[in-house]
Amino acid sequence: MDSPSQTNVDRARLLITCVDRPGVVAAVSQLLYEHGANVVDSDQHTEPDDLRFFMRLEFDLPGLQERLAALEEAFLPVAQRFGMEWRLAPAARVKRMAVFVSKQDHCLQELLWLWKKGELAAHIPLVVSNHPDAREVVAPFGVPLHHIPVTASTKPQAEAAALELMKDHQVDLIVLARYMQIVSADFIERCGRPIINIHHSFLPAFVGANPYAAAHARGVKLIGATAHYVTAELDAGPIIEQDVHRVGHRDAVADLVRIGRRVERTVLARAVAWHLEDRVLPHGNKTVVFA
Amino acid sequence: MDSPSQTNVDRARLLITCVDRPGVVAAVSQLLYEHGANVVDSDQHTEPDDLRFFMRLEFDLPGLQERLAALEEAFLPVAQRFGMEWRLAPAARVKRMAVFVSKQDHCLQELLWLWKKGELAAHIPLVVSNHPDAREVVAPFGVPLHHIPVTASTKPQAEAAALELMKDHQVDLIVLARYMQIVSADFIERCGRPIINIHHSFLPAFVGANPYAAAHARGVKLIGATAHYVTAELDAGPIIEQDVHRVGHRDAVADLVRIGRRVERTVLARAVAWHLEDRVLPHGNKTVVFA
Amino acid sequence: MDSPSQTNVDRARLLITCVDRPGVVAAVSQLLYEHGANVVDSDQHTEPDDLRFFMRLEFDLPGLQERLAALEEAFLPVAQRFGMEWRLAPAARVKRMAVFVSKQDHCLQELLWLWKKGELAAHIPLVVSNHPDAREVVAPFGVPLHHIPVTASTKPQAEAAALELMKDHQVDLIVLARYMQIVSADFIERCGRPIINIHHSFLPAFVGANPYAAAHARGVKLIGATAHYVTAELDAGPIIEQDVHRVGHRDAVADLVRIGRRVERTVLARAVAWHLEDRVLPHGNKTVVFA
Amino acid sequence: MDSPSQTNVDRARLLITCVDRPGVVAAVSQLLYEHGANVVDSDQHTEPDDLRFFMRLEFDLPGLQERLAALEEAFLPVAQRFGMEWRLAPAARVKRMAVFVSKQDHCLQELLWLWKKGELAAHIPLVVSNHPDAREVVAPFGVPLHHIPVTASTKPQAEAAALELMKDHQVDLIVLARYMQIVSADFIERCGRPIINIHHSFLPAFVGANPYAAAHARGVKLIGATAHYVTAELDAGPIIEQDVHRVGHRDAVADLVRIGRRVERTVLARAVAWHLEDRVLPHGNKTVVFA
Repeated sequence: MDSPSQTNVDRARLLITCVDRPGVVAAVSQLLYEHGANVVDSDQHTEPDDLRFFMRLEFDLPGLQERLAALEEAFLPVAQRFGMEWRLAPAARVKRMAVFVSKQDHCLQELLWLWKKGELAAHIPLVVSNHPDAREVVAPFGVPLHHIPVTASTKPQAEAAALELMKDHQVDLIVLARYMQIVSADFIERCGRPIINIHHSFLPAFVGANPYAAAHARGVKLIGATAHYVTAELDAGPIIEQDVHRVGHRDAVADLVRIGRRVERTVLARAVAWHLEDRVLPHGNKTVVFA
Repeated sequence: MDSPSQTNVDRARLLITCVDRPGVVAAVSQLLYEHGANVVDSDQHTEPDDLRFFMRLEFDLPGLQERLAALEEAFLPVAQRFGMEWRLAPAARVKRMAVFVSKQDHCLQELLWLWKKGELAAHIPLVVSNHPDAREVVAPFGVPLHHIPVTASTKPQAEAAALELMKDHQVDLIVLARYMQIVSADFIERCGRPIINIHHSFLPAFVGANPYAAAHARGVKLIGATAHYVTAELDAGPIIEQDVHRVGHRDAVADLVRIGRRVERTVLARAVAWHLEDRVLPHGNKTVVFA
Repeated sequence: MDSPSQTNVDRARLLITCVDRPGVVAAVSQLLYEHGANVVDSDQHTEPDDLRFFMRLEFDLPGLQERLAALEEAFLPVAQRFGMEWRLAPAARVKRMAVFVSKQDHCLQELLWLWKKGELAAHIPLVVSNHPDAREVVAPFGVPLHHIPVTASTKPQAEAAALELMKDHQVDLIVLARYMQIVSADFIERCGRPIINIHHSFLPAFVGANPYAAAHARGVKLIGATAHYVTAELDAGPIIEQDVHRVGHRDAVADLVRIGRRVERTVLARAVAWHLEDRVLPHGNKTVVFA
Repeated sequence: MDSPSQTNVDRARLLITCVDRPGVVAAVSQLLYEHGANVVDSDQHTEPDDLRFFMRLEFDLPGLQERLAALEEAFLPVAQRFGMEWRLAPAARVKRMAVFVSKQDHCLQELLWLWKKGELAAHIPLVVSNHPDAREVVAPFGVPLHHIPVTASTKPQAEAAALELMKDHQVDLIVLARYMQIVSADFIERCGRPIINIHHSFLPAFVGANPYAAAHARGVKLIGATAHYVTAELDAGPIIEQDVHRVGHRDAVADLVRIGRRVERTVLARAVAWHLEDRVLPHGNKTVVFA
């Protein structure tokens, strides 16, 4: 895989979903070849259950910026012929990501670090928090923190304010990095942007609040974390990534919390990086991840 | 850890549970020392929530067999002083294990192999199955298969027959190695022996039937298996061991089944080995595992 | 991934290696499309260091057997145009695999068992051993054991006899499943068939004999196993798969051996399955694994 | 395990190493009991090869500070009777740790961040670097950076200056967090403090410089990191912790570097935390880790 930090102005990704039919790959390959594109990475998958076809192509095309419109136009008949949902994403069009956080700042920290190291291909125009605590964390990274307190009675206004910020900053992706407020179905719908959440359990086990306490009470031998897209149904959206870590009888709830922090950081960072590089294609309530 | 195959006639394990009080370890250590026992392994744990104390001591005592009764008698006052539940288990008193199986024989296979290699310190006087299919598997190991068919109407008689076999063969432990019948609460109670089950999911996710299909439908990125003691509540007994394996969008349900077989074999084998070596101490609905 | 047991007479795999040049994928896809092949799985990789291109295509073509020759003929000009090394492998042309073993039979056991479950797409016409011990293991599987004793003085004759057997049984793949003899450079060269070995360490650590003793002496915290193709240089051939398991100060060499057995079984089984499904493409002293 | 942040003024750890003899545990337990100490955690190990006995006891003793001297005095005869090497370490006597770093700052970052979260029971009086780059990293944590440039000709003076700093700041532990200078045998000897290094390979594979490039050239399928105590022989000191991560043919050297950063951070953090909590007992060129 290419390092996301070396953004190549001539590189783009083509994402395709359609019903699988013979000739799809041939048609796409031929068109890219004719336009002088050099495919550097390609991955495809056909879901046997519904014969849904997924493809991700990464290619270099000298002078991409000037030739993008022509390429898209040329691609239209192919897309129509196969009934494709498709998207052409230049690598240089880096996504704008807003991070939402509450008091626990370890996931925010991890994202900011990796971002600074060039491991996350994103702009981060703002961080939003219902607490002022994260101000100190974001300061060294030069990212502004917008403090939007939330109470039961002010939640609608708070969500409206957050939405306004998303529009103002032309945000492409929202990451809930241990944001301890349930975002409303209304927010999700009006937002219209993908939202990635990190849940501190191995979903679907321990849905809801206090998963580490629940895991401890059940006596599991592994704890986990799950990064998923947010949908109106709580903790039930498409899973992008999961991982676990071994625990034992010596570990109290506080230990699970501590051990879990590392798992959460890792899982969320992977999921966000994959999304930013257009590696995650939703498929109903599941995901195809071309990692 | 000692290889379970080299059964030492002078070796025993002392298992202790009581409320934690100062002086427990001193009293036990002193008594064993006075009797000339040489402690070769020791592990202890105090649960912070309820101050419950757990201890496992493995020791060598020359001439153990003749001296066991005297040691137990001497231990009585110490046990009473601290209100201990306790058990002295000579390593040479190898447990008698019955394996229950249905059509899927991979877990049975694994147990029989490991047993033959000396990795499971058990006698296996019989295998019980509701299907005749496993006959071929057990034959090379010289273990008799008892075929007890089960239908909705014959279940009580079938369970009674199985119970009779457990008594006749003086079974200490029942292992449900992908036995696809739900054992009744009545059976569990009348049986009075520990029963270990392998569940083909990362409990408490996907309780019940067809966990691999459920995992596939939810789009999880890891599948797991869980070995647990059987209680009257389905799939809710104390967990002994769990493990997982990574899966992805390319894996169909059949792949999860195949990948899961390996996880199931590993997890069940570990749990059974630990139980046979007296390394698992139940604690309410959880386990302390001194592995 | 498809279950290897459901061999499809209309399915084939196309393996390609060449210098990466624009148009490769388009040309191959177009040709398969024109011949009515339906691509069910496709994977490709370009090595950035030397711009070597690797591709594995799995496709269904109704009436494959009768149309194979025509397809190969039609493919020739494409192959020549791009300077391809290539191979068309019908899934129904199942590989013939010989397993070599010494006294330790756990890897042999695992392979036979997976083979019987349909997880290894192979014929196993024979097992070769320098000891007679494995006879009991292979008997239930109906595979003949050829006992070829090896001493320092008889090694050339023993290798000649083994080579003769490979020819007689038209063996496609040799698997050294803990075969404790070093096969000579002469054998490897004259054999001309791929040979997969399982080494009981995380190569390149602990090359040579007694790796578990060496790992114990070094005090490592993880032990591993490595499946690799055999080349004239001992333990230095292309690695196909590796895995590890955690160990600690409580584990003696005998424990490492026991724990290692499980890792060896898993690693070798994966590597052999991948090879049998034409998923492993050698590249100098490395491998591209399309798993 | 207890969270290291809640430093308990009444808590201490007793570390013991001696030749294993009957009565050791009884004598130690009895003495602690008589002094009113409440053992909260205990772990022991006897190395079968040389019958070396290791023990770590964690206990609470009300009024520890005033009673420590008396307890040590009372322990002396027990220690002499069994020929013990031993150490009584109050948890409140937090170790003073110096971190050495070069340009790669991810391990330094991880340590500082965990330290701030209370996961590392240490004082960090200073960071030493042969480059000025880390200044920005340490600033938000209020830790001074001492920039000591090193060239071939100035190395002796540089090491002398570093030694002076260790003395001035009463440093207990040095952590080489990707410090890319080989510390001389002379420095190690004169320093007389434990030094923990993170090596970016799964030692003993890829000893020396550029391990990721070497791993890539060898085509391994897992990359690792190793935290070990530094001895005069390069990369050969006692291993404290290791871990690995899966890689494949798609990963270039730059990807191994990126993936490896996460492994390095995790492995070093665990090793340092264990050392700070007196959980690591050296044993020749190996370690006993009571984690």
